[in-house]
Amino acid sequence: MKKPQLPPTEAISSHPGLKTTTDNWFEYPIRVYPHHTDYAGRVWHGTYLTWMEAARVECLLSNGIDFAELVNLGCDLPVIDLAIRYHQPLALGMNAIVKTRMKEITGVRIHWDYKIQSLDTEQTYVTARVTLVAIDRDKGKILRQLPPGVKTVLSQLQKG
Amino acid sequence: MKKPQLPPTEAISSHPGLKTTTDNWFEYPIRVYPHHTDYAGRVWHGTYLTWMEAARVECLLSNGIDFAELVNLGCDLPVIDLAIRYHQPLALGMNAIVKTRMKEITGVRIHWDYKIQSLDTEQTYVTARVTLVAIDRDKGKILRQLPPGVKTVLSQLQKG
Amino acid sequence: MKKPQLPPTEAISSHPGLKTTTDNWFEYPIRVYPHHTDYAGRVWHGTYLTWMEAARVECLLSNGIDFAELVNLGCDLPVIDLAIRYHQPLALGMNAIVKTRMKEITGVRIHWDYKIQSLDTEQTYVTARVTLVAIDRDKGKILRQLPPGVKTVLSQLQKG
Amino acid sequence: MKKPQLPPTEAISSHPGLKTTTDNWFEYPIRVYPHHTDYAGRVWHGTYLTWMEAARVECLLSNGIDFAELVNLGCDLPVIDLAIRYHQPLALGMNAIVKTRMKEITGVRIHWDYKIQSLDTEQTYVTARVTLVAIDRDKGKILRQLPPGVKTVLSQLQKG
Repeated sequence: MKKPQLPPTEAISSHPGLKTTTDNWFEYPIRVYPHHTDYAGRVWHGTYLTWMEAARVECLLSNGIDFAELVNLGCDLPVIDLAIRYHQPLALGMNAIVKTRMKEITGVRIHWDYKIQSLDTEQTYVTARVTLVAIDRDKGKILRQLPPGVKTVLSQLQKG
Repeated sequence: MKKPQLPPTEAISSHPGLKTTTDNWFEYPIRVYPHHTDYAGRVWHGTYLTWMEAARVECLLSNGIDFAELVNLGCDLPVIDLAIRYHQPLALGMNAIVKTRMKEITGVRIHWDYKIQSLDTEQTYVTARVTLVAIDRDKGKILRQLPPGVKTVLSQLQKG
Repeated sequence: MKKPQLPPTEAISSHPGLKTTTDNWFEYPIRVYPHHTDYAGRVWHGTYLTWMEAARVECLLSNGIDFAELVNLGCDLPVIDLAIRYHQPLALGMNAIVKTRMKEITGVRIHWDYKIQSLDTEQTYVTARVTLVAIDRDKGKILRQLPPGVKTVLSQLQKG
Repeated sequence: MKKPQLPPTEAISSHPGLKTTTDNWFEYPIRVYPHHTDYAGRVWHGTYLTWMEAARVECLLSNGIDFAELVNLGCDLPVIDLAIRYHQPLALGMNAIVKTRMKEITGVRIHWDYKIQSLDTEQTYVTARVTLVAIDRDKGKILRQLPPGVKTVLSQLQKG
C-alpha cells in the first residue's frame, strides 16, 4: 500500500448548514425528498444509512480528512457493525439534523454515535452506532494501525 | 382501522429459488448487480437492508401473509430496531443466500434473525437482527395486539 | 380532492448553496458519497435521478411551492417521461452543481431541463429532461388543469 | 488492458423465472417491495433503473457473458444514454415482467429496448431505451471495438 498521508488539514467544506456543536456533535442537515420515502409516506428505514454516511464523510472532511483521497491512497474504512433504533418516523418534506460524533478508537476500529433530531432538538427520530475498520485496499486486509495522519485527526476529534 | 383479516393461506409465490430449510430458515437467493456495489467493488453496506426486506416479505408471503394486503387493511409493520454485522464482503457478480427466520414475538413486536451466506454455506457474509412492530396505519399508533390471522401464522412460523 | 391552495409564498429554504442564476437555472450543489458510487468508483447512473429530484423539490420550495404540502392537499406530480445523457462521469468525492430550469408547461405537463456541471462550469457531466404531470391523488387521474397557485408560480418561473 | 476473452458460453443462471420469448425478449420477473416504493405507494421512478440493470446483466449471463468477469478483464459497459416513459404505475406488492432485448450495435455502442408489463402482458407500465458503450477500464477511454467474444455473443442476440 502507498503510505496514506494526511490530506491538507484546512477544512474544505463550506456547506453552511454544517457545524460542530459545543458538545462535539457534528451536524448535517437533511430534508426528506420523495426518493427517501416508502408507501407509508415515511422515510424508508434503510435511507437513514445514506444520511449517516454523508454526515460521517462531511465530519471527516471538515476535520481535514478527505475520504476519497484516503481511498485513493489505499486505505478504506468499511462499516463492519451497525445498530440503529427508530424512535419516531420522519415524513415527506420534513427537516432534521443528523448528528454524529466519533466516540472512540479501539486499535483500527473507529466507533461513531448518531442521533437524528428535529431542528429544535425536541424530537429524536433515530439513534445509532456505527463501527468502521481501517483496511489496506491492495491486500484486502485489516491494517495493523491507522495511517498516522488519520490517527492524529481522529484523536483530536475524540478529545473534543 | 378496518379489521385486518388473514389473506388466503395458499402460498402465492412460485419463485423457484425460495425455500424453507429443515432448521426453519427461509432462503432468498440474490446476485450482486452493479447498483448494489460501491467504489470498492463490494456491496455497499446499506444494500443488504433491501435484500433483508425482500426475504422477509417473501417469507411472509410463502406463509400466506401478503404484506401489501396487510398494509391495505390498515396494519403496517415498520422496522423499529436493526443490528447488522458485516463479516465478509460480497463483490460484484457474486451469488449468496439471504436466510431469515422469525425468532419470537413479544406482544406486537416481531423479531427476525438473518444470515447471508455463500451457496455452499461455507462463508457467512452478514448476520443481523431486525425488530418490527405492528401499528394501526390510520391512528399512527402501535396496535395492542397483532391481527388474529397474522398472529396465527407467525406463531406457526415460530414453532417451526 | 381538497382544493390545493398555494402554500405561503415566502421562500422557506435557507440552504446556502442554493441559488438561481441570471439565466434562470436553479443551482443545487452535491458531493459524491460512497453510496452514490458503483464498482467503477463512478456515480451509478441511477443516482443522478435522486439529485435531479432533490434539485426540483428545492427549486419549487424556493419559489414558494412546498411539495409535501401539495401532496397533502391531494395533488401529486409524478414523473412520466425522462431522458438523460451521461457525458462525463463523476467520481467519489467530487463536487458538482445540479442545475434545473422549468422549461415550459403544456396543459398539466411540466417540462424541466437539467445539466450537471463542475463548479467552474467547464465540465458538463449530465444533461437531462424530465416531464411531470399533475394528478388528483384521490381519483388517481390526471388533473384537467394545474392548481391555480401552482400555475401562477410555475408561469413566473417560466418567464424567468 | 488485459485482453477480455469470452467467458464460458454455457448459461450459468438457473433462476427459474428467467427466459427468452420467441420474439427474442429476455424476461426478468420482479415483485414490488417496500423499498421500491415512495410516499404515493407506487414504485419510485428511479427504481425501474435497478430492475432494468438486473434484467440486462441476467440476459448477458444467460447468453454466456458474465458481466463481473468482463469488468475484471478490463472492459466496462457504462450507460451513456437512457430514455424512459412511465405509462402506468406499479404499486406495492404487484408483480411484473421486465422485458429486455438487445436492439442493435453501432460500433462500440450497444442499444437495448425495454418494456415492463403485467404477467398477462395486458398492461404496459414502462417502456425504455438504454445505450451502453464499451470502455477500457485502465485507460478510461472508449474502446475502438468490442472484445471479440462479446461481439460474437451480441451479434447472435441481435439476430434473435
